[in-house]
Amino acid sequence: MGKSKTAKESLAVMTNLVLPNETNQLNNMFGGELLARMDRISAISAKMHSGSLQVVTASVNHVSFSQPIPLGSTVKLESKVTRAFKTSMEVYVDVFVYNYEQECYMKTNDAIYTFVALDENNKPVEVPDLVPETELEIERFDAALRRKQLSLVLAKRMKPSEAHELKALFTDSEN
Amino acid sequence: MGKSKTAKESLAVMTNLVLPNETNQLNNMFGGELLARMDRISAISAKMHSGSLQVVTASVNHVSFSQPIPLGSTVKLESKVTRAFKTSMEVYVDVFVYNYEQECYMKTNDAIYTFVALDENNKPVEVPDLVPETELEIERFDAALRRKQLSLVLAKRMKPSEAHELKALFTDSEN
Amino acid sequence: MGKSKTAKESLAVMTNLVLPNETNQLNNMFGGELLARMDRISAISAKMHSGSLQVVTASVNHVSFSQPIPLGSTVKLESKVTRAFKTSMEVYVDVFVYNYEQECYMKTNDAIYTFVALDENNKPVEVPDLVPETELEIERFDAALRRKQLSLVLAKRMKPSEAHELKALFTDSEN
Amino acid sequence: MGKSKTAKESLAVMTNLVLPNETNQLNNMFGGELLARMDRISAISAKMHSGSLQVVTASVNHVSFSQPIPLGSTVKLESKVTRAFKTSMEVYVDVFVYNYEQECYMKTNDAIYTFVALDENNKPVEVPDLVPETELEIERFDAALRRKQLSLVLAKRMKPSEAHELKALFTDSEN
Amino acid sequence: MGKSKTAKESLAVMTNLVLPNETNQLNNMFGGELLARMDRISAISAKMHSGSLQVVTASVNHVSFSQPIPLGSTVKLESKVTRAFKTSMEVYVDVFVYNYEQECYMKTNDAIYTFVALDENNKPVEVPDLVPETELEIERFDAALRRKQLSLVLAKRMKPSEAHELKALFTDSEN
Amino acid sequence: MGKSKTAKESLAVMTNLVLPNETNQLNNMFGGELLARMDRISAISAKMHSGSLQVVTASVNHVSFSQPIPLGSTVKLESKVTRAFKTSMEVYVDVFVYNYEQECYMKTNDAIYTFVALDENNKPVEVPDLVPETELEIERFDAALRRKQLSLVLAKRMKPSEAHELKALFTDSEN
Repeated sequence: MGKSKTAKESLAVMTNLVLPNETNQLNNMFGGELLARMDRISAISAKMHSGSLQVVTASVNHVSFSQPIPLGSTVKLESKVTRAFKTSMEVYVDVFVYNYEQECYMKTNDAIYTFVALDENNKPVEVPDLVPETELEIERFDAALRRKQLSLVLAKRMKPSEAHELKALFTDSEN
Repeated sequence: MGKSKTAKESLAVMTNLVLPNETNQLNNMFGGELLARMDRISAISAKMHSGSLQVVTASVNHVSFSQPIPLGSTVKLESKVTRAFKTSMEVYVDVFVYNYEQECYMKTNDAIYTFVALDENNKPVEVPDLVPETELEIERFDAALRRKQLSLVLAKRMKPSEAHELKALFTDSEN
Repeated sequence: MGKSKTAKESLAVMTNLVLPNETNQLNNMFGGELLARMDRISAISAKMHSGSLQVVTASVNHVSFSQPIPLGSTVKLESKVTRAFKTSMEVYVDVFVYNYEQECYMKTNDAIYTFVALDENNKPVEVPDLVPETELEIERFDAALRRKQLSLVLAKRMKPSEAHELKALFTDSEN
Repeated sequence: MGKSKTAKESLAVMTNLVLPNETNQLNNMFGGELLARMDRISAISAKMHSGSLQVVTASVNHVSFSQPIPLGSTVKLESKVTRAFKTSMEVYVDVFVYNYEQECYMKTNDAIYTFVALDENNKPVEVPDLVPETELEIERFDAALRRKQLSLVLAKRMKPSEAHELKALFTDSEN
Repeated sequence: MGKSKTAKESLAVMTNLVLPNETNQLNNMFGGELLARMDRISAISAKMHSGSLQVVTASVNHVSFSQPIPLGSTVKLESKVTRAFKTSMEVYVDVFVYNYEQECYMKTNDAIYTFVALDENNKPVEVPDLVPETELEIERFDAALRRKQLSLVLAKRMKPSEAHELKALFTDSEN
Repeated sequence: MGKSKTAKESLAVMTNLVLPNETNQLNNMFGGELLARMDRISAISAKMHSGSLQVVTASVNHVSFSQPIPLGSTVKLESKVTRAFKTSMEVYVDVFVYNYEQECYMKTNDAIYTFVALDENNKPVEVPDLVPETELEIERFDAALRRKQLSLVLAKRMKPSEAHELKALFTDSEN
């Protein structure tokens, strides 16, 4: 697994409509439907990065549903791997809704999924390193480490005092 | 509706996995599932071109399923409007499957849908002209007219002898 | 495969309602749902004709959705094999909607599917000849050959000049 | 509602395959899926008999699943109204599975549903009388009364002693 | 299978919402959806009682849908085995809908399913005896025998005159 | 909204099987299916606490899928409101899988959802206070505040330095 890959090599795009049986009583898209679509598209990015035929969702980071997405909307999801750890990958999904008046997509949402790549015996397998290129990719690459630390702290598998990058957020004087 | 639009302004992309409940007994993607996905993505192109919140499928052209798409595949659909008629639009969908060994998408399939744009009273509404730019867009723009003629001939709403562009296919000496 | 079969031996009928999660925003049946039902019923005709436990959709011919089918409708699909080629069969599906005022079914639609029969190793297998009996069956049997030629021409696997029956449509003087 | 109708005027037929996402872990059709299909086809018979656009399931009689129906089967449901009461109708559904070796349908199952017809205000509405013609239709017409009595007895809305036809089953000397 | 179990050891509870794609045109829960949920929860009780990894629905007793359950309702199903026979179990499902004004669940419905437990070769396997404890459990335990007799009588596998407990319902003088 | 409610008044339980069309290629339950079930059961707890007919998912906290849940499993979800804020409620869902050998449920997973209660005009509405009673309820009640702070910090709507309870986690000397 000496080879590394850029973030954009794992870009995946899923555009789709919001149909009646994907909406709640308020005629807005179900949270569950959006979560499922994000799971599928981010799995594709993880498969493309790892070259593995099988990846499984390890976790979903905090997801907010601040803006309802109404029935009939055109929703575009874009996902890219942000950082590779040993056998796992963090994938960032951006959610956009098409605005028919302004003829452009507007960002409404995002989510972060973590996947583990499996080999043909369903054992975790090492994945290539991820090389961020753009400013946003680098920012997300750095934040991925803090998120991993937070996840380990919350799971009590790392002491808060050892999560240096994360801890700095709360203790740096300028905050 | 004086404004015209380019083909690429209507580009829509849908990447998605093939999951177990989308396959037949041979563990290949259902024809019906692929038709439904193509219907959704081409409807999005038609909505983006027409700016109409409502479009309805008028017809699906001949679709071949020559290559089976196995369970677990990553399938990418790309659709663009090829030509606009008065209130209808022809949309071309290209289907690609990701080849994990060669790390690229391979074309497997295509399909052509026709949509009618509706206004808020569900009446057909005029759509902008379509301006093809690339060589492929121009080739498809020209073929769209022959397909429309063929469709009218088969529906007995046009005499074969009046479908000049179509007829030329069969009568030109070089064939 | 010396045995031949009549068209009516492959008759299959599927009557079903149009329920809320099978409709679009206009409360009419989805094109995709109708395509999927037609795929299922025509596969049954192909299985009955071929006696094969496995058939796969090879293509769907041009399908028009001229009349919307509203929520709550009773839709009846009738399918019969129209013609058998070596390992493939063309199946014709007629679509009817029940008119509750006139207490009868009214035809709204039709479609033509092509299936290939497979043996237990998923290899194409020869199918019995089809013997049309009624006037309509004979008309559709003849047209099936022209459709096959058109399909080959469009796929560039037959020269237009060699598609004699099809070409006649465009070149006969009476047109 | 002076008009009466024959049983065969309400005949509805639904042929369909058993697909992977309609089966349980044993690869046999789900009981729930069969119940849902029977509900749909018998609702169609009830709509055709009553001429009402809206019917609702009032009850499902005892249903046995004695023979498993394997994945890939061709299943045919035939339903007919057996007897009309004031605002309700009893519908009998026969289930057949196609036997590809013997090239015929074999009966596997049956079920009895009761529907109430509603008017446009969703109030129960009177339905035409049902006239049985064949021997089987007459036998089911007679049994429908006993089933109604049994249903009323079990719901404690009729005393067992008043269910004369039903009681006779248990008290006639020849038993 | 010397061990016996109490009814409450098989208690299973399923609370769930009624969502748009589970409703009919009147915006009430489909009969078919309720039947499917009841099938799932009662299968769980049967699995817990039998300790078998595989149970199959043998029959569904008479089910009434007297009260419509509107869209958005909170529906709670509670199931318990009522009586074990040799390789089969009768399971009783009570259906409740939450009343948001009175802040409590109200019973709307019930149903009785019969399951057979299977071993790893899919052969019926003996199940533990069921010991009813509460008054209601004892009442249902006793009635289960009469229901089994009725089922055998209707299937013509038992003479009415031999169904002593059932027959008593119709012949006891106090009726 | 002077009234307060205990946590246990909002308890909701959903037991259900894992069926074939809810599994991935490894025959384990889809992450997306589990997320959707958790969304439904926690919405019920939020509705019961708020007494509101309509609640919408505001966010899903970090969810781990550490243990795969195989096909055929019996999965039980238990949800309770942990803390009420002005118009929002945090709901904790515990996930258990039934172990048929040990005849008991084993915890596999948990998740935290936040809901907002809406009135009949779909505007946020105040909800009753939540009174924790058991030790676990109190522990989760306290942690809910830190989670809310973390969520506000990550959304850049609160400065890390102002998130006192959260900050203490990282700065207390004993860490």
